[in-house]
Amino acid sequence: MSQTIFSRIIAGEIPCHKVYEDAHVLAFLDINPISRGHTLVIPKRAVAQLDQLPDEDAAAIGRVLPRLCRAVMRATGASAYNVLQNNGALAHQAVFHIHFHIIPKFSDDDGLGIRWPAGQLDAEAAKALTAGIAAAMGR
Amino acid sequence: MSQTIFSRIIAGEIPCHKVYEDAHVLAFLDINPISRGHTLVIPKRAVAQLDQLPDEDAAAIGRVLPRLCRAVMRATGASAYNVLQNNGALAHQAVFHIHFHIIPKFSDDDGLGIRWPAGQLDAEAAKALTAGIAAAMGR
Repeated sequence: MSQTIFSRIIAGEIPCHKVYEDAHVLAFLDINPISRGHTLVIPKRAVAQLDQLPDEDAAAIGRVLPRLCRAVMRATGASAYNVLQNNGALAHQAVFHIHFHIIPKFSDDDGLGIRWPAGQLDAEAAKALTAGIAAAMGR
Repeated sequence: MSQTIFSRIIAGEIPCHKVYEDAHVLAFLDINPISRGHTLVIPKRAVAQLDQLPDEDAAAIGRVLPRLCRAVMRATGASAYNVLQNNGALAHQAVFHIHFHIIPKFSDDDGLGIRWPAGQLDAEAAKALTAGIAAAMGR
């Protein structure tokens, strides 16, 4: 795993606006926020994509996410927000160390805007896909 | 907490294309997918927003998310994907029971498109915000 800017932040080589830290997790303000209070939550383990994260680190991040969301909402006064985690350059990932964005939403103009090209699930395709995913979970 | 369509899916009153279930978590295909393999991961506890989810349920979802992402990627052949969780109508939440979207990304045209109005973090504002969030975490 190559070093990223987040490894250097974890190591204390680059400063950050830290809001939380425990044995597995670090959270700090995004320096290029898309809304006020935009916060990043990262595992200390240097892993690029969520699918590569071991259970223990994943549980630690999952456990603290609601508390961090509550704290960001209290401090900013927002009540709506998005949690986004991107994997792969095609999916808008820019730093190749897992990070969850907590993005407060104050109005239609700030925060996360989404394009949502929803379709209909085809019944036959769904059967095959369900079987495939369920089988992969069993491995 | 009012009932949503997800409560009825958990209760088995409405069918779903189930890919995974444990004591705390249910995962199934989105019936209005924005890409092939678009999967929803929900806590069995009926809670509207992530900030309201108890630690134990949150850890259970966090723990299984990487495994579910791996399984969806294996079954679809995708390597890039987004994990998105919306809170509040302003932030595009439509069903008021927590749900994480796992959205495979095959091309620029399918899956999640985002608008990302990035700014610069003001140093003074960042100090106050960091202190506010850190203090809220301590409560």
